[in-house]
Amino acid sequence: MVSRVVFGRGSFNQLDEIISPKRLNVNAPFIFLVDDVFKGNSWLTSRIPLAYGDKVLYISANEEPKTSQVDALVEEIILTTKERPSGIIGIGGGTIMDLAKAVSIMLTNDGESKDYQGWDLVKNPAIYHVGIPTISGTGAEVSRTTVLTGPDKKLGINSDHTPFDQVILDPELTKDVPKAQWFYTGMDCYIHCIESLNGTFLNAFSQSYGEKAFQLCKELFLDNNLTAEEAQDKLMMASWHGGMSIAYSQVGVAHAMSYGLSYVLGTKHGIGNCIVFDHLEEFYPEGVKLFKQMKSKHNIELPQNLCADLSDEEFDTMIQVALNLEPLWENAIGKNWKKVITPEKLKELYQNM
Amino acid sequence: MVSRVVFGRGSFNQLDEIISPKRLNVNAPFIFLVDDVFKGNSWLTSRIPLAYGDKVLYISANEEPKTSQVDALVEEIILTTKERPSGIIGIGGGTIMDLAKAVSIMLTNDGESKDYQGWDLVKNPAIYHVGIPTISGTGAEVSRTTVLTGPDKKLGINSDHTPFDQVILDPELTKDVPKAQWFYTGMDCYIHCIESLNGTFLNAFSQSYGEKAFQLCKELFLDNNLTAEEAQDKLMMASWHGGMSIAYSQVGVAHAMSYGLSYVLGTKHGIGNCIVFDHLEEFYPEGVKLFKQMKSKHNIELPQNLCADLSDEEFDTMIQVALNLEPLWENAIGKNWKKVITPEKLKELYQNM
Repeated sequence: MVSRVVFGRGSFNQLDEIISPKRLNVNAPFIFLVDDVFKGNSWLTSRIPLAYGDKVLYISANEEPKTSQVDALVEEIILTTKERPSGIIGIGGGTIMDLAKAVSIMLTNDGESKDYQGWDLVKNPAIYHVGIPTISGTGAEVSRTTVLTGPDKKLGINSDHTPFDQVILDPELTKDVPKAQWFYTGMDCYIHCIESLNGTFLNAFSQSYGEKAFQLCKELFLDNNLTAEEAQDKLMMASWHGGMSIAYSQVGVAHAMSYGLSYVLGTKHGIGNCIVFDHLEEFYPEGVKLFKQMKSKHNIELPQNLCADLSDEEFDTMIQVALNLEPLWENAIGKNWKKVITPEKLKELYQNM
Repeated sequence: MVSRVVFGRGSFNQLDEIISPKRLNVNAPFIFLVDDVFKGNSWLTSRIPLAYGDKVLYISANEEPKTSQVDALVEEIILTTKERPSGIIGIGGGTIMDLAKAVSIMLTNDGESKDYQGWDLVKNPAIYHVGIPTISGTGAEVSRTTVLTGPDKKLGINSDHTPFDQVILDPELTKDVPKAQWFYTGMDCYIHCIESLNGTFLNAFSQSYGEKAFQLCKELFLDNNLTAEEAQDKLMMASWHGGMSIAYSQVGVAHAMSYGLSYVLGTKHGIGNCIVFDHLEEFYPEGVKLFKQMKSKHNIELPQNLCADLSDEEFDTMIQVALNLEPLWENAIGKNWKKVITPEKLKELYQNM
């Protein structure tokens, strides 16, 4: 779990105070990985506390994070710093959170990041890493994974060394998120709850977090009678609780299929989940019904027929990436999931998307 | 925050696997502080993984934990171990949790534990410490405090070094808790929620945890249609969420007054909270109403007239201990609390208890 958390509007201002005691020496800089939507946004950037050789690396989150991107960042950091950095600070959405976690792991572990995609493959503790989310929903700020697209698969580096040492939850940082992205990323959280609460891995720990996040999502996306600030605060907490819920259970059908979609088409995770989930009445009838209400309430139009022109080979890859996520299917369907979820079944589902 | 948590029925069996990698060397033992109700209970004790010079110290939880008790335990441990221990493992209720946290702090910090009662006075990180609750409600398994009765005051050692490094939440360990104690300790959690949710320090973080714990308490103590196992599981989670809620806000009137009661009369925390809360309609009308319903549903009779024979001097001490807890009053009443909460007002309230 994340060891330290600060919550509050304006808590981003405490960053200097929080990280200063963690500086190892003047040659060991802090590296800030910052979503490039903030480039030139001095409201945020002027508050990044730079000293000595600290560096800001602006990173586009237009594509899902890749193992090759992690390895390139690690190489750049090693080549341009005098000593191993004092810490990695990620400021952005799920993509930046995942990159910050993966880079901090790969600075102390040999080889390439693709070698660590899986469960509990990380040997050495990561360097100090801080997560500062600027959009809410992914749960990446609290999770023990860092989902990466590698040469062979889309899969997380799941390990005890993955979670951030420190998280700063400042809901004010989410104030300028565009409407569609707010919805897609918020739905990532909503789908986490549905998949966790309806999974066979459910336990009282995950259930209590999942139920809270689910209730907050309904309050946010259906009841919709909060002030802008309250909504920012509550969505940040929903994301947190949704992330905690899946950390102790697992996601399900929507995530498995969305990984396949994303691997082949590069679809971003939030919208990809929505596209898939919209067609999953069969697995999550109540959850999908509410989702459609939320979509309609916020006038969200999802892309249609994404898979219309896929070749057989592309379908096969998509299906294989999805099927490889065995724990997700086991959680969703049960131990005998292979009897229900065949390549043919998945093809049929994908063909509607 | 607690860095690592395991949840599940039977997860106590993982203790060996969890602590073994933390053994520093063969001369640095693990010290198990165990509630003496488990003495001779081989169902539990046979699963305590002892090796080398590891020791089990059985401790009575009949009285609230004291600074003198912490200091005596630390001295005993220093005198009887070859090297500083590898870790302290607390197995018991709130008293044992608090002792385990305090001992682990005092093994690396000079002086006496009374010197650290307050906020952020601890200089050095504690030794590795593990909490394994065997009764649910106090939130001591998750909190950043360890409440101790000292020579001058009842106050916690609140610090970033106080929380456990590891918690094992095994609801099965609570199966033999006697009914009255189950209720009093469960109400500690319920009262945490009421005080947090009705406090001026409330924020979206605390609110989300407090609401979840509150909802679980209602399900457990009013709706009451769970199996014994479900109830054990859910109460353990309620305790956790209630503890998280106050960790990011504060408790209020019931805790402040209960500390005074406990300081003078030695009343245990759970029942003390109940005795006080029963008379706080003025501050928490809805919360007290529900509390009375819960009490009646479970046929709980609280002691009456505890303060009937107190001397003026005893009243003064009780009132002074309560009034000293300024953050609690500020949370409950607001910045101008001193206008409302006078010694006379408190005496009037105590006289009814």
